[in-house]
Amino acid sequence: MQLIPKNPLFRENIRHHLKRQEFMKLCRCELVTIEPGYVVAEIELDTIHQQQIGLVHGGVTATIADVAAGFAGFTLVAEEQHTVTAEIKISYFAPGLGKKLRAIGTVVKPGRSMHFCEAEVFVIAEDGTEKLIAKATTTMAIITPKNHGLMA
Amino acid sequence: MQLIPKNPLFRENIRHHLKRQEFMKLCRCELVTIEPGYVVAEIELDTIHQQQIGLVHGGVTATIADVAAGFAGFTLVAEEQHTVTAEIKISYFAPGLGKKLRAIGTVVKPGRSMHFCEAEVFVIAEDGTEKLIAKATTTMAIITPKNHGLMA
Amino acid sequence: MQLIPKNPLFRENIRHHLKRQEFMKLCRCELVTIEPGYVVAEIELDTIHQQQIGLVHGGVTATIADVAAGFAGFTLVAEEQHTVTAEIKISYFAPGLGKKLRAIGTVVKPGRSMHFCEAEVFVIAEDGTEKLIAKATTTMAIITPKNHGLMA
Amino acid sequence: MQLIPKNPLFRENIRHHLKRQEFMKLCRCELVTIEPGYVVAEIELDTIHQQQIGLVHGGVTATIADVAAGFAGFTLVAEEQHTVTAEIKISYFAPGLGKKLRAIGTVVKPGRSMHFCEAEVFVIAEDGTEKLIAKATTTMAIITPKNHGLMA
Repeated sequence: MQLIPKNPLFRENIRHHLKRQEFMKLCRCELVTIEPGYVVAEIELDTIHQQQIGLVHGGVTATIADVAAGFAGFTLVAEEQHTVTAEIKISYFAPGLGKKLRAIGTVVKPGRSMHFCEAEVFVIAEDGTEKLIAKATTTMAIITPKNHGLMA
Repeated sequence: MQLIPKNPLFRENIRHHLKRQEFMKLCRCELVTIEPGYVVAEIELDTIHQQQIGLVHGGVTATIADVAAGFAGFTLVAEEQHTVTAEIKISYFAPGLGKKLRAIGTVVKPGRSMHFCEAEVFVIAEDGTEKLIAKATTTMAIITPKNHGLMA
Repeated sequence: MQLIPKNPLFRENIRHHLKRQEFMKLCRCELVTIEPGYVVAEIELDTIHQQQIGLVHGGVTATIADVAAGFAGFTLVAEEQHTVTAEIKISYFAPGLGKKLRAIGTVVKPGRSMHFCEAEVFVIAEDGTEKLIAKATTTMAIITPKNHGLMA
Repeated sequence: MQLIPKNPLFRENIRHHLKRQEFMKLCRCELVTIEPGYVVAEIELDTIHQQQIGLVHGGVTATIADVAAGFAGFTLVAEEQHTVTAEIKISYFAPGLGKKLRAIGTVVKPGRSMHFCEAEVFVIAEDGTEKLIAKATTTMAIITPKNHGLMA
């Protein structure tokens, strides 16, 4: 499916939003690719991302999945619009243990008032091998001036 | 439903695990109540928890929900067991804006190999009023020596 | 939360829709209560509802949950609007075995473009005892002439 | 990922189970392909499958998705085991309108006590064109004599 952005400056718009994304900074989460309906987020894993037995905390995985899927949806909205997560489900396939976390967010079905997005989360080992550790499906609500009160 | 812990030292066991929960520390997430099948987690909200327009990041909400639901399940496992999140779904009802985030985790249906848990996430304003902003449902897999390779 | 219907004739509107609900008839699913944001659906269980080992098929449980949650949302939309299920998640707590299936659908958070709804599904035994066997959470999209193409 | 069935007679086992699948018969749902970790289910659409405005009822879509994903998981369990749906989430992308419904079920991550499965649901028009209308992700619990009481 060819996905056409409504806002040709979607990258600049997203970069502008990222400046104030304090929690992404806290998690050291960065967007490394921003294409129409396709966003890749990465985190260099460190001790701060761990739960009690040294694996990546599920909250980190949920965060990077939400970020990748959400910004994938964001690439397809009009200039005055933005997206918010209405709901997200994450399935955890394998423990997160490695050097880097990578989430690939895609828009599975764009719509007028909501986008259905997904994210696959991989862990990358020291030797460069990748492993799928989680997968998320999400409904992203599109917020416009007209329905701005949606989530209020 | 009366929930009976299999491990009478479940609080000590959880407290022991919390010491190494680095991501919870990063998020300043604390457990303020630990009862059988019932756990309350809280975060004093600060700039670090915000997304681009000053609201609580969805990843923070997902993290506190996962923590509260997960440890609620953890109160009901045997001494040698622990729980891991198999999947979690979070629905976001309203923007997170306030002084404190509180998640109440409960076990809806305990089982032999998995617990079904839930978490309700509230934001508490300066004046003390509470508002439900999100709700999570989750399947917590119970890991024992016998099926330790479950998620491998 | 007091829920006010926008369409005072919501019951008549729903009853009108039910006439052509062929799959509900096939499943022998009936609405026994229709209140603002609260709907109860029931199925008298028979052989037709069973899977291979004589329990209620998960598809039956999913159907009654979708119906109860969806019509609960339907009670709160305007006259020209209707709701469609954007997504639903069902957790299965216990096997369905009994005389009757009952789903209680509620609106957890009404909104302008979507309602967050839930359904609890109970099985009722011959002796009248009830047991919670499943729980569903769902996002119901509100369809209006303006955004009619939403799911197209 | 190469998926190896533990039970070489998995097809016969599934065919045996299908004989008593009353609700699948009611829905006219058939399995047309049964491979390791991969099952295709189909329904010839008729009036009985419709909701009030002539589209496929969400319960039909949920049922065929559950069947395809569940039996995909079933192909990978041992002879004495079977699977039950612990939870399923279905996202509805587009209205179901056409001649045939097809669900492709796959095992995304097999495990010892649970399989993570998915199903994509397509509608096939009179002219043979296919359209993805829904997608499901699910956790299938593996039931063995040892943990038979799991869902009790």
